[in-house]
Amino acid sequence: MKSPVHITVTGAAGNIGYALVFRIASGQMLGKDQPVILRLLEIPQSAAALSGIAMELEDCAFPLLQDIVLTDDLSVGFHDSNYAILVGAKPRTKDMQRSDLIADNAKIFAAQGRAINEHAARDIRVLVVGNPANSNALITAANAPNINRQHFTAMMRLDHNRAKTQVALKTRHPVADVKHMTVWGNHSSTQFPDLGHCLVGGTPAFDLVSRDWAEDYFIPAVQHRGTAIIEARGASSAASAANAAIDHMRDWVLGTKEDDWTSMAIPSDEGHYGVKEGLIFSYPVTCSNGQYHIVTGLEVDDDMQNKMNTTEQELSQERDIISDFLKLSN
Amino acid sequence: MKSPVHITVTGAAGNIGYALVFRIASGQMLGKDQPVILRLLEIPQSAAALSGIAMELEDCAFPLLQDIVLTDDLSVGFHDSNYAILVGAKPRTKDMQRSDLIADNAKIFAAQGRAINEHAARDIRVLVVGNPANSNALITAANAPNINRQHFTAMMRLDHNRAKTQVALKTRHPVADVKHMTVWGNHSSTQFPDLGHCLVGGTPAFDLVSRDWAEDYFIPAVQHRGTAIIEARGASSAASAANAAIDHMRDWVLGTKEDDWTSMAIPSDEGHYGVKEGLIFSYPVTCSNGQYHIVTGLEVDDDMQNKMNTTEQELSQERDIISDFLKLSN
Repeated sequence: MKSPVHITVTGAAGNIGYALVFRIASGQMLGKDQPVILRLLEIPQSAAALSGIAMELEDCAFPLLQDIVLTDDLSVGFHDSNYAILVGAKPRTKDMQRSDLIADNAKIFAAQGRAINEHAARDIRVLVVGNPANSNALITAANAPNINRQHFTAMMRLDHNRAKTQVALKTRHPVADVKHMTVWGNHSSTQFPDLGHCLVGGTPAFDLVSRDWAEDYFIPAVQHRGTAIIEARGASSAASAANAAIDHMRDWVLGTKEDDWTSMAIPSDEGHYGVKEGLIFSYPVTCSNGQYHIVTGLEVDDDMQNKMNTTEQELSQERDIISDFLKLSN
Repeated sequence: MKSPVHITVTGAAGNIGYALVFRIASGQMLGKDQPVILRLLEIPQSAAALSGIAMELEDCAFPLLQDIVLTDDLSVGFHDSNYAILVGAKPRTKDMQRSDLIADNAKIFAAQGRAINEHAARDIRVLVVGNPANSNALITAANAPNINRQHFTAMMRLDHNRAKTQVALKTRHPVADVKHMTVWGNHSSTQFPDLGHCLVGGTPAFDLVSRDWAEDYFIPAVQHRGTAIIEARGASSAASAANAAIDHMRDWVLGTKEDDWTSMAIPSDEGHYGVKEGLIFSYPVTCSNGQYHIVTGLEVDDDMQNKMNTTEQELSQERDIISDFLKLSN
């Protein structure tokens, strides 16, 4: 049996956290041979709910769960942390401007970045789920200068999985047949779900679905799926978001399938596909040996380039709003 | 790849259902080689929430999930069903007598038993989670006379897992070291969590903990754990209950570990351990080849016998309340 690893989850008592921590403890994220110590961070107001979740985790008798640490202290929450899933974020309230939301969350993620820099394991891998996820990841990375920037990522896997399913439903293929899906850019409504290289049972997706369907149905359906879920459930996506976080981390650590890739929002520092450097931008990636590698050499036509530019521009604008938080204060 | 099996979950839009269906679809219940078709039953008032859950299931892109059927019609919900997890039940409201609760739920489970009898696969395996679980299972079985009575069970696995964890925490052993735990009787506060045959790292539990601890702390802590969870969370156990349902079904279908047993509430029709016939009573069982087998020959002293009698008497009283529902009406 391997040595246990420390996994930090912020916002652990929220709906995504509640759907996530049991699946981590069951071994679905890092494998059946990897003992885990959960470090669950919450705001003080959620301490009672968090203790209830810890009791329920105990009541599962998970063989891999070696310890549970509950805290509202960042230095405790990120102590020796090997993996962090940053779920907690301030939600958008009615009449709030998106720019205010971004600035409010910036403070939270800057503080977490500093705590990671000081207290986490030097090879910590970070996944930001809380929105605006890409910009929150950028802030977190900027405030943790002693940690490899490549280890700060934001979640596009929910969008990626949603895109695969829409193609599977349309083509009446099993979802496992849908490969080489890419969702580019920002985890927002400007994201670009791209069928250009997608294969369905080995056949190019565009041999099976029309360009009109992609434009008029597929792209907007994936971009706005979160809203559709809220309308149906009366609550935002929780179990499916938690599932995507499991998928993201598992593939990053244990590798993607040999004949497929996934979508991860990662630092655009090498400028692949002409994207401006210094953003957290979603690319197609393969993973092996705990590293991700951008899938290079994909053909990008003018229409695709325009769509990638749109989402890149939004990320640039978000970066402008949070620029104060990207400078190190200490 | 195997042929898909049909799995019915009632009360699928409730909190336990929401924690359960994603784990089933991910393959944790029946294995990574078993495709599943989920048949999710809810009352009409929960139809919108249920459709949201189906959308989130789609958004997980689970390779094993072949289809999702949403319905409020029992004949559709149990059609060809191979496995049924009956979670939905009328909860106890303030000032309600327990006898009224039992009678109200009796109607629900009698109807489900009839639907199983008419529509389900002939080898369907049924797990009742909704309370009062043991008596609800008895009613379901009585109303499905053409199905093997041994295939109707009630969930004691949450109590079993809770008991294991309490011993692990007390003895500072990993929970995986705790074996041969038994929780006898009814899934209620009369249940008997029994350390008499329990081993911790191969050592008898009573060499490591005192009889007083078992009597004064362990037994009441396990019996009343559900209440403690509600006090902490402000909501009843959901993820841990769902996890126990996964464990119960997985062990039943795929087998218990070679050197261990589990606790399942099953028909007491053979009168093992002197328990009155015709109840759904929890025993220690091993499972192999899709069958459970009562662990026989365990020594039972007077004190243990008294505790088993107490929970048996409660089950007999519950049976008296529901006697009208145990007679077939058609």
